[in-house]
This record gives sequence, structure tokens and C-alpha cells, in this order.
Amino acid sequence: MALIVQKYGGSSVANADRIKNVAKRIKEYHDRGDQIVVVVSAMRGVTDNLISLAKDIMPIPSEREMDMLLATGEQTTIALTAMALHALDLPAVSLTGAQAGIQTDGVHTKAKITDISPKQVHQMLDAGNVVIVAGFQGQTPDGIITTLGRGGSDLSAIALAAAVDADLCQIYTDVDGVYTTDPRIVSTARKIDEISYDEMLELASLGAKVMQSRSVEFAKKFGVVFEVRSSLNNNPGTIIKEETTAMESVVIRGASLDKNQAKVTLVQVPDKPGVAARIFKHLADATINIDMIVQNISHGDSPATDLSFTVEKVDLPKAKKLFDGLKEEIGFAKIDANENVAKLSIVGGGMRNHSGIAAKMFGTLAEAGINIEMISTSEIKISVIIELDESEQALKVVHAAFLEDQVSP
Amino acid sequence: MALIVQKYGGSSVANADRIKNVAKRIKEYHDRGDQIVVVVSAMRGVTDNLISLAKDIMPIPSEREMDMLLATGEQTTIALTAMALHALDLPAVSLTGAQAGIQTDGVHTKAKITDISPKQVHQMLDAGNVVIVAGFQGQTPDGIITTLGRGGSDLSAIALAAAVDADLCQIYTDVDGVYTTDPRIVSTARKIDEISYDEMLELASLGAKVMQSRSVEFAKKFGVVFEVRSSLNNNPGTIIKEETTAMESVVIRGASLDKNQAKVTLVQVPDKPGVAARIFKHLADATINIDMIVQNISHGDSPATDLSFTVEKVDLPKAKKLFDGLKEEIGFAKIDANENVAKLSIVGGGMRNHSGIAAKMFGTLAEAGINIEMISTSEIKISVIIELDESEQALKVVHAAFLEDQVSP
Repeated sequence: MALIVQKYGGSSVANADRIKNVAKRIKEYHDRGDQIVVVVSAMRGVTDNLISLAKDIMPIPSEREMDMLLATGEQTTIALTAMALHALDLPAVSLTGAQAGIQTDGVHTKAKITDISPKQVHQMLDAGNVVIVAGFQGQTPDGIITTLGRGGSDLSAIALAAAVDADLCQIYTDVDGVYTTDPRIVSTARKIDEISYDEMLELASLGAKVMQSRSVEFAKKFGVVFEVRSSLNNNPGTIIKEETTAMESVVIRGASLDKNQAKVTLVQVPDKPGVAARIFKHLADATINIDMIVQNISHGDSPATDLSFTVEKVDLPKAKKLFDGLKEEIGFAKIDANENVAKLSIVGGGMRNHSGIAAKMFGTLAEAGINIEMISTSEIKISVIIELDESEQALKVVHAAFLEDQVSP
Repeated sequence: MALIVQKYGGSSVANADRIKNVAKRIKEYHDRGDQIVVVVSAMRGVTDNLISLAKDIMPIPSEREMDMLLATGEQTTIALTAMALHALDLPAVSLTGAQAGIQTDGVHTKAKITDISPKQVHQMLDAGNVVIVAGFQGQTPDGIITTLGRGGSDLSAIALAAAVDADLCQIYTDVDGVYTTDPRIVSTARKIDEISYDEMLELASLGAKVMQSRSVEFAKKFGVVFEVRSSLNNNPGTIIKEETTAMESVVIRGASLDKNQAKVTLVQVPDKPGVAARIFKHLADATINIDMIVQNISHGDSPATDLSFTVEKVDLPKAKKLFDGLKEEIGFAKIDANENVAKLSIVGGGMRNHSGIAAKMFGTLAEAGINIEMISTSEIKISVIIELDESEQALKVVHAAFLEDQVSP
């Protein structure tokens, strides 16, 4: 008998029939004797409807009241899910986030979980129930309802799994798991059986949209092993866990492409202390997020260097306007901006112990005639900025070079 | 500065525009310095939608989960109402029933309020806020969400008014107040300025659908003075309060007609101890509600009497079938049933000190050629069963005789 936490997202509970399907799946686990905690999101579309209702009243509604409003979405789903289990003769009870003991700070619409007191959950499990918990929500120590922001239901599930010391946490979604790369671009992409938290984090932050980084970080912090799998079939998914020695034998776990980047180069920036700090202070004040930063060494008597960085494409006009007004203050010669770029990355914990990965990646791209415009590396990741038009071809050759010769990535 | 509890029903908050209108009304009171607690229902139609969603999952859903589900309706309204007040620059916070300290027993879908701990409400009022509370809902001492059943939001408002010791409780609805009789039948019907709890209770139970009896009973028990008034205009409504000497000078407060009654007569029932008890035990077991009961004295050696009572029209087939099977056990001769009847009542605390009211009523009906089939009286009410076809005419003549000569009823 295992204690399992299962999370079902908004598309898995989008209507009465889907909720009944979820109930059938839960019953399979229940019938084999498992104790089950189910975390559900709002039915697909419900949250958007509530938001538009609020906007009809006030353009920028109070965040406290938005949380009060949005929390009704998951509360609706938990009640309906419990009813669907009753219809299959399973004992089941629903709990709001607050009732399940999910305590948060008071930062409305993006609260952080600070504690979980799963006393009620345990009592109801011990009484033989499937316990259905509203994801995405909690309450402050003062009893004020909060929501956790994007990816909040995943976080609820992983935090509950940690709090009840679950044997397994399953995140049900509409994909089969985490892939070596985007199967819509590379037809030979394969599902990954196991991946480490760090690798998942690099892939998540690179745009593999299966899960938000914060949930993976939480799982890593509390050592919660979890599985991402499909609610549409019975295929095993991808297990995300701490890196093991066995996992290290796979050098590269996955490759990803982020087409949402734009490159900005400030040409001939004076190379003296404090200039770079000023530049990035201006960007931060304008709430423009920076991803990669590259600066080369400078030469000569009046040293100047080219400083390049990437921003999200939507922020490019804002960034250009910002620096047009800073030419004199900072003293650079001109600004080059290019939005026809993409970021290609390979990720793998094994690259720490293998030399030559960067050389192989750059060589593979060179053979395909693809020029590299920027390079950035971390311990388990190498990212390059390349031309947007060549980026899918680049992903294919890199995937072929690193990821298609493995039996199980 | 007064402390006011205002309750707005589902039609007053049916959409964004109506919620904005409610906010404007609240602002008028706020601007004159009053502290305001607002109780709101679910937006019209929302509760029905939730019920049909539940029925799509399961024909007879668990009552615990129905409460979990339905409680989202009012929670949605409180958040939107708070936002609408923010849009008018009023400080406002919303509270669920549970957060407002409304404690109930555990009888799901029709819970009784057992206690209110309005600490949060007071704190938020003292901080200068309008406090918006979800009507119709509460929680058990174990923190399980309950709903109060029909008329629950009125009850929430009156109970909160008692708990916070409000100066006034206003129940906003879509009528101007309580009328001397149904204005759709009697064009000369007038709004009543003041009415006692007991009179209101008699009128409510007689089918004046402004409020459920339980809310009036609660108000009577805790001495909560409340006003029923329209959310569509600024007319003063009807004040409901304990009877005063001044009120007694008005003999009859109102007249009502209940067309939903059917009359059953068991002919020649043996007049011996225990027979009537058996008859009404059978009716209770079949969950058929009885309203009026009339039994005449019997004569002769083998005493037998006719026993008449009224049931709701929908229950008449069930009652007939029941007694068809009991003819031998009870020993009556035959059963007469008539659904072409109505109950006409006059209500007024003043009739206690005035003789001749019954005589005047019966005389008025006789003059109009209307036959009386049954009579029943209480301390402040006289009811008669008459032919359905003559009932509206009967209401008109009785209203004219008792209620049109008063300046202020």
C-alpha cells in the first residue's frame, strides 16, 4: 500500500466527462489499496471567466479580492471530483487549500507556501477516504485566502507530497512526460524516463513548458520524487528526482530551443568600473529581464568593449528606447538590436565529468554551416545564440549528435 | 454614526452593472459616516448552474460536497462587490461565512447557525472598511463548509446584525416592502410601514414570499429590528420589530391568500380516542404536511364525526391514495377531496384586544355571497377556506373592509 499524491490540471477536469475519467483513474489506484491525495486545478476556462468578470467591475482589481475570487475555481472542481468518486462508490472528501493546511505568506496572487499542517488530510485518509485538495490556493496565518500564481497547482501537489511524506507524486498533464527536445520540431525526440531536478530546472527555464521552475525547485529542496505523465493514456511518464550515479552515464539529457529571445549589443561601451552595473540597473528599473550576458575583453589606450545581452522579444522596443536615451550618460557608440535570433541549449548533469561537449556542439553546428553569435555556459548547460531561420535545423543536428545514439536518455 | 447590516439578494447582484449599483448605494451610507456590513447572495442563476453541473456528475450528490460547491457562489459575489467598492475609492474587504465567524451545526444544505464570532468583522470595521460577508454559508466547529438552505442569506444578515449589535439591518429585495395584501390581486394594497415579528411570521407562513419564516423567527428571538426595502429605488421599506402599544391601534395588519391548498374530509370517522392520532401519524409518515385541521363534535350512540384538513395541492394525490388504503383500519365512511379551494387569512396583533373581528370578516364574506367551508383561528390570525373561483373577490372585499380605511397600516 502506497501513499500517492496525484495532480490533475485544468484540461484534465475541463468538463463533467473528463472529471468522471479522472475519477476512474483514481479508482484504479484505490482498488489496489493505495491511499490517495488528489490535487486539482480549476476547470479549463473558469479562471479566465472569473478574471474577465472582475475586469468588468474594475480594470485593476485588488489582489486580495482576486484571490478570494479565483479560489472559487478550484473549490468548484474539488466538490465535483469528490461527487464523481462517490458515483463510483469510493469514499471521498474535498478540502480547500486552507482546510488542507496549506499556509502561505500574504503576497496575494503569487503567495509562497510557508508551511503545511496536513492533520485533516491524514485524518481523512485514515478514515478510508480519497482526499481531494484544491490546488493553487492556501491561506495566511490570519486566515486570508491566497493563491500561488502560475503553476500553483503543481506546487500544491509537490508541497503536499512532501508534507504527507508520500511515496509518489504524479503530475498528470496532456503530454506523456519530458522529451529530449520538442517533438513538434524534431521527430526523433524521445520521452525521457528519468531526469534530475537540476536538468529539469535548466530545461524548464529554457522554455520546456511542462512545469514551472518553482515547483521543481520545491521538489528538489524537499527531495520529492515526482512523475510527469499523461491523463489521456496509461503510459509511464518521466520521473524527476535527485541525480544518481547511474544517471550520470547519460551526458546530455535534452536539448531545447527558445525562439523568444532578442539580442542587444551596445557597441564600444567605455571599459571602466561601474558602467556595466549602471547599464543593468537601468534595465532592472525598467523591469526588463535579461537572460544571457556576454562581454569581451577590450584593447588599446582608451579601452572600450562591446556588451551583448538577450532580452525577451516583447521587451526589445522598450530596451531600445531606454538605451537611446542613455547614449550620453553611458557613452557607448551605438546600439545593435536583432530579434531574428534563437537560443539553443543542451542540458545534462553528465557534462560535468565529460570534456569536449562544448567542442562537439560547436563542431556539429559548424559542420551544418550555422554561425554562433553568443555563447553562455553553466555547470550542466551550454547555450548558444544563433540565427532564428537556422534554429530548427540547428536543434535537429544537435539532437542527432547528442541524443539519438542513447538507448534511454 | 450607525452600524448597519445590509443584505442584497441574487437579483440585486445579478451582473457587473447591478453590483456597481449596489456599491453606489453602500457608498451613500458610507459617506454619511456609517459603518457597514454587507451580506450578499450568489449572483442570480449561479447557484442553479452549479446544481446542474453537479447533477451531470451524479444524480443525488453528497450534501457535504454540494455545500462545498454552492459556497463558491457567494464567495464570487463578495469578491466582486469588494472590487466594485474599491472602484468608488471605498476601503472594503470580503469575508467568507467561515471567515466572518458564522458557525453552524453539521446538517449540510440546511444548517442552523449555532454561534457567530464576529472578531474579524469588528477588526475590519474598526480599520475603516466596509465588510462584505458571504451569505447563506458558514462552517462547523471542525471547519467544514455548510450552507443554510432557502432564505439563508437573509438569515446570515439578521444573525450578523444580532452578533455585531447593529443599529439597523436592511434586507434589500426587488419589492418595496411588505404589503397589506398582494398588489397583483388587490390594486388598493398599500405598503406597511411597521409590522410586528408575529404578524410578519403569520404573513410569511401564509405565503407572503418576501422572507422565510426562519429569518423572522431568528430576528424575533434576538430582537433584531430590520427593514425590508427595494434595491431599485430609495423608498423607505417596511420595518419589522417587536410589537409596540402604538402598533396595536391597528387591528388588522394584512390579508393574504394561499391558493396552494387542497381540502380533504374523512366522512364519519369513529369518534374514539386515538383515531385522530393514527390519522395524522399516517400523514406524517408519508411526509405530507397538514395546515388547517377542523373536527366537529359528534352526536348519537355510535359517535362518528367528519374530520377535515388541508394539504398542499401537490400532496393531494398522495393523500388520497394513502387513505384509500386505510378505510378499514380507520373505519371512516368515505373521503371527500377538493382542490378548488383557497385559504384567505387576516392577520393583526390588534385583534387580541378587539372583539367582533371574526364576525366582521364572516359578515363581509356573506354579503359578497361567498361561502365559508372551514374556519381556523390563532391569537392574531383568522383563516377561512373558500372556493378557489371566489377567492380573489373575497380577498378584495376583506381588504376593503379591514385595510383601506387606515391611514397607515
